[in-house]
Amino acid sequence: MTFSQQLRANANLVEGRLQELLGASANSVPPRLAEAMRYAVLGGGKRFRPFLVLESAKLFGLEPSAALNAAAAIELIHCYSLVHDDLPAMDDDDMRRGRPTVHIAFDEATAILAGDALLTFAFEVIGQPETHPDPAVRCELALTLARAAGPAGMAGGQQLDLEAERWPRSDAHDVDRVREIQEKKTGALISWSAEAGAVLACASSDDRKALATYGYLLGAAFQIADDLLDVEGTAAEVGKATGKDAAAGKATYVSALGVEGARERLRRLQGEALAVIDRFGQRAATMRQAVAYVAERTS
Amino acid sequence: MTFSQQLRANANLVEGRLQELLGASANSVPPRLAEAMRYAVLGGGKRFRPFLVLESAKLFGLEPSAALNAAAAIELIHCYSLVHDDLPAMDDDDMRRGRPTVHIAFDEATAILAGDALLTFAFEVIGQPETHPDPAVRCELALTLARAAGPAGMAGGQQLDLEAERWPRSDAHDVDRVREIQEKKTGALISWSAEAGAVLACASSDDRKALATYGYLLGAAFQIADDLLDVEGTAAEVGKATGKDAAAGKATYVSALGVEGARERLRRLQGEALAVIDRFGQRAATMRQAVAYVAERTS
Repeated sequence: MTFSQQLRANANLVEGRLQELLGASANSVPPRLAEAMRYAVLGGGKRFRPFLVLESAKLFGLEPSAALNAAAAIELIHCYSLVHDDLPAMDDDDMRRGRPTVHIAFDEATAILAGDALLTFAFEVIGQPETHPDPAVRCELALTLARAAGPAGMAGGQQLDLEAERWPRSDAHDVDRVREIQEKKTGALISWSAEAGAVLACASSDDRKALATYGYLLGAAFQIADDLLDVEGTAAEVGKATGKDAAAGKATYVSALGVEGARERLRRLQGEALAVIDRFGQRAATMRQAVAYVAERTS
Repeated sequence: MTFSQQLRANANLVEGRLQELLGASANSVPPRLAEAMRYAVLGGGKRFRPFLVLESAKLFGLEPSAALNAAAAIELIHCYSLVHDDLPAMDDDDMRRGRPTVHIAFDEATAILAGDALLTFAFEVIGQPETHPDPAVRCELALTLARAAGPAGMAGGQQLDLEAERWPRSDAHDVDRVREIQEKKTGALISWSAEAGAVLACASSDDRKALATYGYLLGAAFQIADDLLDVEGTAAEVGKATGKDAAAGKATYVSALGVEGARERLRRLQGEALAVIDRFGQRAATMRQAVAYVAERTS
């Protein structure tokens, strides 16, 4: 199976579980809210975070079925964050994945509530016995998920990202600030996903740490590739020398390091990510391919 | 100690824990987000839900210190819901507790993120070892809290409440619909609070059910008293025969049952609430006083 096929196979499994979860409680959920939640979650996305949950679980011999609730929960959190990020008071986006965003397709109040409901529902999913037979493991997953998504994690990163729009231009060149935002805003959830398999398998603390670090390195590589794509994608177009990030004065890895510096850092992060999962040997073949996958995004 | 003194004593304990919790993580939380979270939570409110957590814990001989994290978590959830309810797209309120609401004092994006962060942080608090030494108990608290606050609970109730503003007038007289909204929007969290002490004490399932039912009855009584207060409070004022709920065509227990019918239902709910905690005998003296307390709000 190629990497793309594996990514799609995992996505299909997660899609099935998300459909079950968002259908099961539908009779006690107000119809319009249930519809908005399904609209926000189903039928789109690469499901990259759930992919990492399933793959890290496989490292320890766990079947995908034993990791599906944790995989669904992280995707619920990711989707809630997109719904709220798209709101008029935030990034004010009308379209996502080729469809109107939730506040456009429904209304702003329903979008706020659907985001709140998805966030809360993620913790209900984690708390269910189907997530893991041992409640101590479920509690650990809930605690670490809350930390990754909360004020010191994703929510904090989003706050910093909004504030960065008002930075003076000189600060857009401070790579440590760019890195802090990225680690909180996207790195924390990706790291949780990579670590989740080890938590589900009650693996050693060294294995947990290795996977958490892999997740942070992968998340940073992903972001650099994204920043490079913004510059290189638009440079190919006539009459546009720079991309929308630069035009908006946005602080990115490219604004901080330049194109060559960003490429070099991306290569370094890829090497570090591969090194840190070396301990898992041949079992980690797909996770190694994921390191190449995120960098392919530069081409 | 009078009931009011007990309410205040519990509130002081919870205030202290909330201050610790919202200060502890401050160094890794972006300053403006941390400030908005503290603004939303600290220095106000009767802390009625935490009061119920501490009192139900006392029924089983638990010290307040053993229930403080659970009490703080439910207040974090309550406060997040107020921040989001006040947003322009929701109830659009500029003032709360005599102060500008969070989106006025800060800005709308920060208010959305502060609400998200408080909701997420509540699950971090529940997951902490300080909440209970047994992770199975913490997991049960997280699962039931997610259900109470999620799409089939508070978030769903808020959705129904917003939709009710567009109901035809005739539906404002359907007491079952009024009850469904109230049970989801406020009843579920109050019921969770009353049940939490039994969960912390690993009490019998019958004790848990009794307290959960008490919470639902108390929540309904609280709402009826509130609806009556709206009518009777404004009726005393010159030139205003009805209150703002009726003027807004809002569906309330009073619009559905009339003033006398609502008073009668309030008395019946009070009787049922007292009956259901009869099993706890003299230990439940304060929880019995709480039943009178919510109804005093009619005077």
